[in-house]
Amino acid sequence: MIKGVDQIAIAVKDLEQAKRFYGEVLGLPMVHTEVLEEERVKVALFKVGQVEIELLEGIGEENPVAKFLAKRGEGLHHISLEVEDLEGTLVRLEKAGVPLIDKVPRKGASGTMVAFLHPQGCHGVLIELVEKRAG
Amino acid sequence: MIKGVDQIAIAVKDLEQAKRFYGEVLGLPMVHTEVLEEERVKVALFKVGQVEIELLEGIGEENPVAKFLAKRGEGLHHISLEVEDLEGTLVRLEKAGVPLIDKVPRKGASGTMVAFLHPQGCHGVLIELVEKRAG
Repeated sequence: MIKGVDQIAIAVKDLEQAKRFYGEVLGLPMVHTEVLEEERVKVALFKVGQVEIELLEGIGEENPVAKFLAKRGEGLHHISLEVEDLEGTLVRLEKAGVPLIDKVPRKGASGTMVAFLHPQGCHGVLIELVEKRAG
Repeated sequence: MIKGVDQIAIAVKDLEQAKRFYGEVLGLPMVHTEVLEEERVKVALFKVGQVEIELLEGIGEENPVAKFLAKRGEGLHHISLEVEDLEGTLVRLEKAGVPLIDKVPRKGASGTMVAFLHPQGCHGVLIELVEKRAG
């Protein structure tokens, strides 16, 4: 049911500085930057083979990245795994007792549907499941 | 120079329990388990598309996983990125001012050569570079 790793997300304090490291120093090609006003984050996406590295900087004081930085500092924030049938997967995982942050799929970037599992059920890892639709 | 994401490593308290979650609940195929006495860790590897998820449990009290768990709890521990010329990459990164944990490549699993970059230089992410040799 899980097809692959889609993204590895990293929480950073300063997106411009982090872009220089992952782009210029490590030499990863940047594919996209975006400001997600609703979710209060700025993102920069880098391509690493089949996987994307997503740098996340929070906007303002109230945002999910700020809470993470306050608790754990900069670093690995979550991983996104691609699934084929997100709705069915969530039903199955809930039956298996996995705590879900999103009980039903919600809209993600670029026409995807996404849902987060609670890290308490995933050995401390925040896991996002993503379903990509054709078209 | 970076070809792709090779592994995502997760520090766990109880490998058997974590294997049940990533294997049975998420349904990822397990490819390998190993006890690395010298490094004081037990590992279980799962295949997720082109990437491996590596679960790490420490052995005894003195091991790198125990330190991580004490500081941050269970969760994402490091990522491994595959490079073509590890030695040349390390020289280049050191010149660029990136703090290195391993200044020269050392032997990894399955005939690979590996080196870790210091998370202080990578926005809090512990990055392992790995070079796979033919044969």
